[in-house]
Amino acid sequence: MSQSESSADQVFVSTVLKSWDQWVGRASQFFESLSDEAMLTEIAPDKNRPIYLLGHLLVVNDYMIPQLRLGEANFAHLRPAFLESPDRAVAEIPPVAELRQDWKDLNARLAVLFSTLTPAEWLERHSAISEEDFALEPHRNRLAIFLSRVSHSAYHLGQLRMQPK
Amino acid sequence: MSQSESSADQVFVSTVLKSWDQWVGRASQFFESLSDEAMLTEIAPDKNRPIYLLGHLLVVNDYMIPQLRLGEANFAHLRPAFLESPDRAVAEIPPVAELRQDWKDLNARLAVLFSTLTPAEWLERHSAISEEDFALEPHRNRLAIFLSRVSHSAYHLGQLRMQPK
Repeated sequence: MSQSESSADQVFVSTVLKSWDQWVGRASQFFESLSDEAMLTEIAPDKNRPIYLLGHLLVVNDYMIPQLRLGEANFAHLRPAFLESPDRAVAEIPPVAELRQDWKDLNARLAVLFSTLTPAEWLERHSAISEEDFALEPHRNRLAIFLSRVSHSAYHLGQLRMQPK
Repeated sequence: MSQSESSADQVFVSTVLKSWDQWVGRASQFFESLSDEAMLTEIAPDKNRPIYLLGHLLVVNDYMIPQLRLGEANFAHLRPAFLESPDRAVAEIPPVAELRQDWKDLNARLAVLFSTLTPAEWLERHSAISEEDFALEPHRNRLAIFLSRVSHSAYHLGQLRMQPK
């Protein structure tokens, strides 16, 4: 591989990784800006509370780790409350402070994992597609999962920002 | 350039373009699902109406065309109402039917423009950075603008979906 081609692939990857930093970073800033009380106040009448969306983004982004074939999820035990059920359906959820720390821990772990992948590895299959199918559908790769999670984070950030001040 | 390297770049680009189809396609489906009356009904108390967000996404995505250095924007005349002002601040806005058609026309135009760019061209500078600065910051490229607009569309789709049925 020539220097310039290698460099172009690296720019593709670094550009894409910056979109994670941008949108997940904004979500982190938003959660940090909310008091624990505001975290427990619904965004709009009968809508989710920020604590639910924090837990939801936590488990969805955590689940990327097995989807990207990079290891085991850490927060699978929170999926019943924050992924498989709507807000308030599960009475027992962790305290706000614990979820805030989980979010920081997850983002630190993801940053390390993302940084280990080479451009070619980003284009390898994700875990939900077989090697046979992937040969026919090469866009079903790790990058596709990653991009979907960036925009999913933006999707919920848009909702979070609707909370009245 | 070997066949395999060329192919990897194409997969990067096709994967990224699919994220546009996914999120902007979902926004289009959502707008199509709303009656004209629902388009004029605010998402939540004192929040934007869907017609405003349709106009907002229209002008922001349209503005990508000059930002990507691919031509002139078509809907610059709508920026005062949908970008520079909040909802309802500008009394005279186009009818819903006209904005729906504008949205379709824009998306058809963007699809053609996106398909013309080679992988190397996606990594060229966007219009807001000089050639000198771009030499130092190669991630400030067309792809970065594009990814930002995908997630911006997802951001507002999240808000739109909060509208009570």
